[in-house]
Amino acid sequence: MKGSLTGKVYLVGAGPGDPELLTVKARALLDRAGVVLHDDLVSAEIISLIPPQTEIVNVGKRSGLKKITQNEINERMIAFAKRGLQVVRLKSGDPAIFGRLAEETDALEAADILFEVVPGITAGIAAAASLRVSLTDRRSSSRVVIVSGHPSGENENQEKIDWKNLVTPESTLVIYMPGHDFSRLREEFLAAGLASGVPAVLVSQASTPRQQQYCTRVGEMHKLPPLPAPAILLIGRSLERAHRRSSAENLSLALDEADLVISAK
Amino acid sequence: MKGSLTGKVYLVGAGPGDPELLTVKARALLDRAGVVLHDDLVSAEIISLIPPQTEIVNVGKRSGLKKITQNEINERMIAFAKRGLQVVRLKSGDPAIFGRLAEETDALEAADILFEVVPGITAGIAAAASLRVSLTDRRSSSRVVIVSGHPSGENENQEKIDWKNLVTPESTLVIYMPGHDFSRLREEFLAAGLASGVPAVLVSQASTPRQQQYCTRVGEMHKLPPLPAPAILLIGRSLERAHRRSSAENLSLALDEADLVISAK
Repeated sequence: MKGSLTGKVYLVGAGPGDPELLTVKARALLDRAGVVLHDDLVSAEIISLIPPQTEIVNVGKRSGLKKITQNEINERMIAFAKRGLQVVRLKSGDPAIFGRLAEETDALEAADILFEVVPGITAGIAAAASLRVSLTDRRSSSRVVIVSGHPSGENENQEKIDWKNLVTPESTLVIYMPGHDFSRLREEFLAAGLASGVPAVLVSQASTPRQQQYCTRVGEMHKLPPLPAPAILLIGRSLERAHRRSSAENLSLALDEADLVISAK
Repeated sequence: MKGSLTGKVYLVGAGPGDPELLTVKARALLDRAGVVLHDDLVSAEIISLIPPQTEIVNVGKRSGLKKITQNEINERMIAFAKRGLQVVRLKSGDPAIFGRLAEETDALEAADILFEVVPGITAGIAAAASLRVSLTDRRSSSRVVIVSGHPSGENENQEKIDWKNLVTPESTLVIYMPGHDFSRLREEFLAAGLASGVPAVLVSQASTPRQQQYCTRVGEMHKLPPLPAPAILLIGRSLERAHRRSSAENLSLALDEADLVISAK
């Protein structure tokens, strides 16, 4: 039987970072894995859940294994599975959204290793939940476009993204890996016909204690600060609620400060 | 303090149906909710996890409350919260993706009720995981377009979807509520310039024991069967792997049958 002498690889979404946003299945797999191979962006809170006797390998680009290639990651997964281990390949967010899943499943299939994909909460959806906004609204926003600010992730000579077809008024844009050059993005959005008043919200490390977010509008995007990865840039009319709440909070903060001044008098 | 005399509403994603694909947080909230208001599409397996003493209200359109309106759902949530209850508003998939989240949060804000959004695994991502395919591939597919086959869900006179901007070769289309008129969808896709050889996969009730899927290509989509909701139609080159595996399985099935014939001789 195919793969009967070897272990199995579970390609598991770790979600956005909060251990409570792991799926029940991911949580159980971490408990009984023989080895966990994880990316850099998997949060420390989640890594700390793995039992002490379990082998943990950071195969992220920023790990001790600085120059690890995709091929080397594939080879390690396969080698562990061939030793009969239950391998958890733990990926930030969901494996099917910018997670290089296809490259790893191609390698596993070629090596005749059994594998299963366990979905996770992807960062864009976690960002929306943390802002308590919907990405769709049957009254205004009928679609969600998930796109990477850095299409290939590695190709320096990559073509520019053609935003023209993406920035329709009825779309919510969810931009992964938006980078830090928000001035350029602003120029590109405005050139593509996006109105400068459309809300733009940058969310960093959604769901973790380190979460930061900035609410602005497309015309003011050049003022967005660089924030730590994983960061998500959300653009669209469906974000108006985040904007309104953020303004209300700032107003209430301003009023609190006014109170303080009055109290100090 | 705002809302201090009342309960709180948790708008919770139930995921695609498999109880193991609930988040750890959703699972814990179901255990300690005072009342659970759920949609039709939340699976029976998940409803059965709710403790017996907890009040459960099906607020789905196909429930006993056949003509329940969105306003009535909002009013019930608010009334329960005002009685001081912890209310779980349980939605199939993720609340921010075609979940009418904004309409409910607007009502909660207007009534000054505390609320929190807990993300879930959305059906499209669960469908991809069940097929073990990536929705993106840095070598071919750089974006994911999530769209509803029935934009407003309720408006009979809705405008047609303009697929032209959506069906670029580098997009994976994830179509929620695709309906059953696949002949019309096929016509619309071909008219929009989508090549007839592009893979199309229909997945019904992903992650449940009732999951069914059909792999075909855009040019053959009129042969797709009607399948029970929630169904997701996935279109794009990133689905080629599902297609290849499905062909391999059919081939292996055909070979098994050939073996049987040979054995019977």
